[in-house]
Amino acid sequence: MTALSTIAFLGLGNMGLPMVRNLVKAGFAVRTYDLSAEAIATAERDGARGAPSMQAAVADVDCVFTMLPTGVDVEGVYRGPAGLLATTRPGALLVDSSTISSAISRTLAAEALAAGRVMLDAPVSGGTPGAHAGTLTFMVGGDPAEVERIRPVLEAMGKRIVHVGPNGAGHTAKLCNNMLSGACMIATTEALALGEANGLDPQVLSEVLRTSSGGNYALEKYSPYPGIMPNVPSSNGYKGGFRSDFQLKDMRLAKQLAAQMRVRTTIGDIACDLFELHCRSGYAKADYSSIIAQLMTVAGDPGVDWS
Amino acid sequence: MTALSTIAFLGLGNMGLPMVRNLVKAGFAVRTYDLSAEAIATAERDGARGAPSMQAAVADVDCVFTMLPTGVDVEGVYRGPAGLLATTRPGALLVDSSTISSAISRTLAAEALAAGRVMLDAPVSGGTPGAHAGTLTFMVGGDPAEVERIRPVLEAMGKRIVHVGPNGAGHTAKLCNNMLSGACMIATTEALALGEANGLDPQVLSEVLRTSSGGNYALEKYSPYPGIMPNVPSSNGYKGGFRSDFQLKDMRLAKQLAAQMRVRTTIGDIACDLFELHCRSGYAKADYSSIIAQLMTVAGDPGVDWS
Amino acid sequence: MTALSTIAFLGLGNMGLPMVRNLVKAGFAVRTYDLSAEAIATAERDGARGAPSMQAAVADVDCVFTMLPTGVDVEGVYRGPAGLLATTRPGALLVDSSTISSAISRTLAAEALAAGRVMLDAPVSGGTPGAHAGTLTFMVGGDPAEVERIRPVLEAMGKRIVHVGPNGAGHTAKLCNNMLSGACMIATTEALALGEANGLDPQVLSEVLRTSSGGNYALEKYSPYPGIMPNVPSSNGYKGGFRSDFQLKDMRLAKQLAAQMRVRTTIGDIACDLFELHCRSGYAKADYSSIIAQLMTVAGDPGVDWS
Amino acid sequence: MTALSTIAFLGLGNMGLPMVRNLVKAGFAVRTYDLSAEAIATAERDGARGAPSMQAAVADVDCVFTMLPTGVDVEGVYRGPAGLLATTRPGALLVDSSTISSAISRTLAAEALAAGRVMLDAPVSGGTPGAHAGTLTFMVGGDPAEVERIRPVLEAMGKRIVHVGPNGAGHTAKLCNNMLSGACMIATTEALALGEANGLDPQVLSEVLRTSSGGNYALEKYSPYPGIMPNVPSSNGYKGGFRSDFQLKDMRLAKQLAAQMRVRTTIGDIACDLFELHCRSGYAKADYSSIIAQLMTVAGDPGVDWS
Repeated sequence: MTALSTIAFLGLGNMGLPMVRNLVKAGFAVRTYDLSAEAIATAERDGARGAPSMQAAVADVDCVFTMLPTGVDVEGVYRGPAGLLATTRPGALLVDSSTISSAISRTLAAEALAAGRVMLDAPVSGGTPGAHAGTLTFMVGGDPAEVERIRPVLEAMGKRIVHVGPNGAGHTAKLCNNMLSGACMIATTEALALGEANGLDPQVLSEVLRTSSGGNYALEKYSPYPGIMPNVPSSNGYKGGFRSDFQLKDMRLAKQLAAQMRVRTTIGDIACDLFELHCRSGYAKADYSSIIAQLMTVAGDPGVDWS
Repeated sequence: MTALSTIAFLGLGNMGLPMVRNLVKAGFAVRTYDLSAEAIATAERDGARGAPSMQAAVADVDCVFTMLPTGVDVEGVYRGPAGLLATTRPGALLVDSSTISSAISRTLAAEALAAGRVMLDAPVSGGTPGAHAGTLTFMVGGDPAEVERIRPVLEAMGKRIVHVGPNGAGHTAKLCNNMLSGACMIATTEALALGEANGLDPQVLSEVLRTSSGGNYALEKYSPYPGIMPNVPSSNGYKGGFRSDFQLKDMRLAKQLAAQMRVRTTIGDIACDLFELHCRSGYAKADYSSIIAQLMTVAGDPGVDWS
Repeated sequence: MTALSTIAFLGLGNMGLPMVRNLVKAGFAVRTYDLSAEAIATAERDGARGAPSMQAAVADVDCVFTMLPTGVDVEGVYRGPAGLLATTRPGALLVDSSTISSAISRTLAAEALAAGRVMLDAPVSGGTPGAHAGTLTFMVGGDPAEVERIRPVLEAMGKRIVHVGPNGAGHTAKLCNNMLSGACMIATTEALALGEANGLDPQVLSEVLRTSSGGNYALEKYSPYPGIMPNVPSSNGYKGGFRSDFQLKDMRLAKQLAAQMRVRTTIGDIACDLFELHCRSGYAKADYSSIIAQLMTVAGDPGVDWS
Repeated sequence: MTALSTIAFLGLGNMGLPMVRNLVKAGFAVRTYDLSAEAIATAERDGARGAPSMQAAVADVDCVFTMLPTGVDVEGVYRGPAGLLATTRPGALLVDSSTISSAISRTLAAEALAAGRVMLDAPVSGGTPGAHAGTLTFMVGGDPAEVERIRPVLEAMGKRIVHVGPNGAGHTAKLCNNMLSGACMIATTEALALGEANGLDPQVLSEVLRTSSGGNYALEKYSPYPGIMPNVPSSNGYKGGFRSDFQLKDMRLAKQLAAQMRVRTTIGDIACDLFELHCRSGYAKADYSSIIAQLMTVAGDPGVDWS
């Protein structure tokens, strides 16, 4: 097993760009491609090497990262005569860090194997702050030996690299997490709204709940109520952070997975539906903690420019 | 303002008994009464002084604690010619640590004031382990000066004493917390079930979720999945801990409060309903984390002896 | 028992005005009062006698109808030195056709009895079309003999007069009905949306569902899908009919009642919450069948003038 | 286009047997096969001709009906060297009256076409009473000309034959219907429980709701409350009728379809989940109206012999 030294990175969005920067910092030779020439230029300023096409970016590298919006995008990039399965070096390690359905991921992994490549799924938790700080959590699915091979690369971008199971397991873990975080976020806003309607101060109540059995990530690190924590989206007009429509996308994937597997996820399903209604009412691009706007008048008007 | 030195404690159940023990340890003179002579005998062994009647217990003390199952019980003990409002020393401080409706609590506080007594609501979080260890959180509602007066007494039983607002606010905070913890517990079991159905190891998944945005009290300190944490009910056949029917009682109070105040607590309401169905299916006396039994086959049969 | 011949009618809205018209047609002497002088003028054109004040309207009549928006309004009209309990003729029959909480209704009925008057609750089903056509259903709660006494009056306005139980029972039946109709309406829109998304024609599907086990009032008489039935709000831009915020008001009362009585109404509660979100998103004044707008793009934009 | 005269019928359960009987009565030559020799014998007594194998039954007929429990069963019977697509006469008309996923149905229809056969989906509504009485509703999906060709055959078994769209549309309509009927049934039990808890007589309330905007199939023809209607399962210990686990199966298919198509069916999803919990609590084989047992103590104990 040889060390991986050259890396292609496809998908230079809010997550991809800082991830590339951290790879470069750690000494990896990174080639990038994105549909946006501007994004490529930014990556080049950070020390990566832009490529004129996806095929040029991936031709000679040891491994290829994808960080794309949807499963359809990932399938498009992997398949076909110009896709990764055909144009990468035989034996190349293909790592998908997008959040997509685990079924698609398993299928692509099998196709990769048949084509003489190796695929891992490695979605992340930690958001844009984690991407910038290099403190992401990677939930990795696939062959254990390959996971060990990619570990040094992932450690350049994250602080926790967890091998959660075979191919697809990374995505499953990610979907479980986002279903859970979405439900806990809404339940937290309900508790705050119920308290405030009865005269409690949201800050005092948040602190009591945080240290009691109601404690959760939203109360610990990501308060949906403005002004309680600095440096979270709620204290910045719900800008930045994790968009509500991305949260919805992930929760829908979880719901589909649950329906297919006949696992009853009643609370997760309802939470997903509430995020759909939230997005429909004008908050699609606001941080997902803006779901508090459905209960309390603290989250600004819908339809403002959240970017 | 004089220090409080003599205390009556009414209600010697799983919570009341260890709380009395800690008061005695801290040097307070404690008189107790309970309908169970056996409970009084236990309290006496711990250094409290049993009384032949509630009236005898409360006649001369500075303050009276109540730790009773329901609001109806508390009303019964407070009101009437033999009740606390009539038989305690004028100026006595009445502290209710039961979890009851905040509306009842506010009404009793007003009646206490009219009768020349002072009432505080001070429900607790932390369960029987916290009661034994003296590490409870008290959520206190009432007059700030009176809260300061009771603080040294509460500190004998708990490590966090939070004044959350006026009378009733303690109960409101407690109901908000239990609604939230019930919802997060169920959402956690759903995430574990979805993961397991897709081949993930519950222990690995629990660890990933705990340190990601899905993190919450259930994953941190109270895993519903057997064998992941020692010393939690799930690793002890769901015995001990906090009974599902008590969890249901509190969630119903939260739901009623929300309905009265027209606060939409969709997730909390559904979680309450799921706990009702759980209790109906034979788990009323099992720890509330046994709700996992509705999704995974790890929680033993319904109807066993949970005591 | 003497026949009732003089009637006062308070509350001349979309329901009250046509009800008065039908009373006049049937030969009753009707005196009316409303806060809107214009409404009184309309009632006068229909043959009723307007009064300069509520007290003047009710002073000498055999019975008084109230048709008011909320329980608070009804309490305000009944109580106090200028209220119905003080200013009507002793022995007068007070009939409340508003939809309010059954608890308030029971309390007012007891107060009426103590004040030497008799109260009945008689909320209606059938909407403005039924009010115009004189085909309302009255769900009447109260003393059976009094119900028989009011029956001829009610028959002037409705075709079904059902004595459902003691005081408050009329309101309870009405709340049960509106909780049920709201839930069935939403479930119907979900079925239509699921069918349409899979290529089914809504009209064909509606017809199949109507005559199968999914059949319900929405499919039979009140299609939420535009163009399937003439003369329903959905075919008239969701104008007229029964406002979404009124539907929400009734469903909230049902939810409160259920929470107080510890009856688990999971589906009804969620349906109520969905109506709240619907009203919040700009459809408060549109007919309640406009809830289809949350699922299909057939119900026009939110925020248009629905009056 | 030639008339269909010889028919094979596969699947002789509670629905299949009476359907075969009606086909025979109408003059069709019917060959049958089932895994149960006893069922074949019963069909033979009704005038059908049993076959020693599925292949023997279908070899020479004009059309083949399948009435099987699940999509997996249907796939098994259609595919493979011994399956219908290989062993029926080229040009044979294959009609599936099972309730399965529309996606599977569409796939099989395409495979049939490729194999030179024609497939229609024709699930039914009306239950065992409708099957016996020959009054079923058929919801048919597929080529319009083929639907006309099969119409005379279906009319021997049903009174309403509705062509709802292309292949798969029949199943979609059926799933929409059962999702809707399940939701309305639960909402009806909630309304009855809320009324009864407030002192209303279930029979009186049922009658008021039936004729008001809450009216639906459950109140019209299939009361879940014992003793209100004769000849319905609730008046017969919840035996007969439509099993709760079959209702659950259909609602799960609807939920999966909705999740895949991203149609938000909040009420339908929750209703599905409540049926799952109902089945888990011992009522899987009781008629689906026994869901009332989750709210009222009228439905007998779980776990009795429902057959």
